[in-house]
Amino acid sequence: MPKKARIPDEIFMKRSLELAVKGCGFVSPNPMVGCVIVKNGKIIAEGYHKKFGQFHAERIAINSAISKGINIKGSTVYVNLEPCSHFGKTPPCTSAIIEHKIKRVVMGTIDPNPLISGKGIAALKKNNIEVTHGILEDECRELNRFFFKYIKTGLPYVTLKAAQTLDGKIADINYRSKWISSLESRKLVHEWRSEYDAVLIGKKTLECDNPSLTARLVKGRNPYRIIIDNELTPDLSYNLYSDKFTNKTIIITSKDPDTALMKILTKRRIRIIKAKIKDDKIILKDALKKLAKIGIASIMVEGGAYTFSEFINQRAADQLTIFTAPMIMGPGIETFRYIHHKKFENAKKVTCEKISSDILINIYL
Amino acid sequence: MPKKARIPDEIFMKRSLELAVKGCGFVSPNPMVGCVIVKNGKIIAEGYHKKFGQFHAERIAINSAISKGINIKGSTVYVNLEPCSHFGKTPPCTSAIIEHKIKRVVMGTIDPNPLISGKGIAALKKNNIEVTHGILEDECRELNRFFFKYIKTGLPYVTLKAAQTLDGKIADINYRSKWISSLESRKLVHEWRSEYDAVLIGKKTLECDNPSLTARLVKGRNPYRIIIDNELTPDLSYNLYSDKFTNKTIIITSKDPDTALMKILTKRRIRIIKAKIKDDKIILKDALKKLAKIGIASIMVEGGAYTFSEFINQRAADQLTIFTAPMIMGPGIETFRYIHHKKFENAKKVTCEKISSDILINIYL
Repeated sequence: MPKKARIPDEIFMKRSLELAVKGCGFVSPNPMVGCVIVKNGKIIAEGYHKKFGQFHAERIAINSAISKGINIKGSTVYVNLEPCSHFGKTPPCTSAIIEHKIKRVVMGTIDPNPLISGKGIAALKKNNIEVTHGILEDECRELNRFFFKYIKTGLPYVTLKAAQTLDGKIADINYRSKWISSLESRKLVHEWRSEYDAVLIGKKTLECDNPSLTARLVKGRNPYRIIIDNELTPDLSYNLYSDKFTNKTIIITSKDPDTALMKILTKRRIRIIKAKIKDDKIILKDALKKLAKIGIASIMVEGGAYTFSEFINQRAADQLTIFTAPMIMGPGIETFRYIHHKKFENAKKVTCEKISSDILINIYL
Repeated sequence: MPKKARIPDEIFMKRSLELAVKGCGFVSPNPMVGCVIVKNGKIIAEGYHKKFGQFHAERIAINSAISKGINIKGSTVYVNLEPCSHFGKTPPCTSAIIEHKIKRVVMGTIDPNPLISGKGIAALKKNNIEVTHGILEDECRELNRFFFKYIKTGLPYVTLKAAQTLDGKIADINYRSKWISSLESRKLVHEWRSEYDAVLIGKKTLECDNPSLTARLVKGRNPYRIIIDNELTPDLSYNLYSDKFTNKTIIITSKDPDTALMKILTKRRIRIIKAKIKDDKIILKDALKKLAKIGIASIMVEGGAYTFSEFINQRAADQLTIFTAPMIMGPGIETFRYIHHKKFENAKKVTCEKISSDILINIYL
């Protein structure tokens, strides 16, 4: 019988990515990881990291094979991220791979953590396991861009999401904005809310829109909801302070609450994170560092103009996601009204796509 | 021998469109037309309308076959537009089709001119020629959208073309704009200049940019260059009034030139078109009607803010073509600064694509 042509590694890596994404919204601040075990060109087991604190993808795939009595000796493991080689909340994945006499491991990217990057590969090679890495590397990095940023910098990945008109306005002069983007665009935003660890708004947006910032238009978990309120004068009747998800509300401020306020916030399980200020403005990177410390690895900033502008001026944004609706507002509130001349000439990537009648522009900074 | 499966009409219609587009920039105000003659599933002759006043595509294809001694009797003719059945600058195409005993004619669209629409089909059917129409109809209509507008309304097709920043500015507060869009975007604009019959600007843009409005970045013919100057006070040192293409310069105004000015304009072959005004503003549709009368079937409006706004406010635009560069201007000149709240909710189509680092948005009104 003629030897079969080897199926390209990309095919199985793509499947790993498909599996990985199933963990979206539940594994943070861990990365999304999918794993496929292949023998004689066929997938014999699969797995993905389902929830923070639980087993990693490699171990889930291996356990799945074992539970079905499948012999994985001599097989190839595909995984979008370098397997861990240290004890964390679960035992190292490399041990399981070595123990079960896997022949070859194919990885998308190596671990971004400089302290452990390459250690998984070394452990495998030491045990004569063939290692290939860099397969669909860009896709693998893109999928876990929140994790990569978080691990490398200790800061969450920050996306500024705006829905504006062709003339760059997020609201009319009376701060009304509800009707700018299409239903499909708004649904997409709710999907993202279930994927980002947190959404963030400024106090003006809270006061104008009284938003809920939940993922109610889709099936998915709700994010943390962060309000920047330097003066710490919250009107506790707003949704974010009074609905049934107040345990997911966080206030960023430089002030200390008085006893009365503290009592109410504690009762409602609303958290306060104190950040440093400069010229009466919250130092965003200080706030972000503190948010990262409580496990928030990704934030979608949803407005308004002042907050967007501050994130750009303080160089605290990683991505701009701008829905542009086919309409002209005329006089109104500019999305980036406090920015003077900013060219994103070093942007890693700029993309566009149609979402219903809107244009979705993404700029990766 | 088994009968071959019939090759779909779309394949040959696509080829007709490919041929038609070769006439782009040279046939206006005629439509772009391509023709393919097919026998036994094979293309045996091709042709396209090359230049206004010259032979139509059908006759060119037929003549090409005859000159090579190819027998076209019993063949199928594919053409993106209904063949003409009247004497214009050239004899009717239907006569040639009938005379050469073509068996079947496949058309993209019927003629948009209500006076002759369907007459070509009738002439063919009367002579027992099988007729199919509506093949790739949308593409055929899109290709000749200038012609369709011109024939149906007696007005040129008008596209507003702007290069703006993410925050909807076409220039900084000092009206500087040269650096907004990428070289690739500017090349595309020059290509369009060679395809539109004319480009048009307002007086302020003339004064700020002193543009040439030629198609110098590409190989192609230059368009007419139209300036709206209601007061008729041209500074004759500007490029449009003094370069070697002044015979392609047209001034739209409501005033009469004095004798001295008229003498210079005549010498430089600069034309004046008088248009009606209302509230001191040029009535654009009146100007457009007069431009159509001298054979201008398509105009690309290149600025500035006042002119863009007037075209939208006076409902005189058919298409918006907006390059959005990945930068924020901050204070500056808004593309549509004189427009209050305009929603393009009935737009026929909205598209987007990447051109280098810019986003190109098209809105077909």
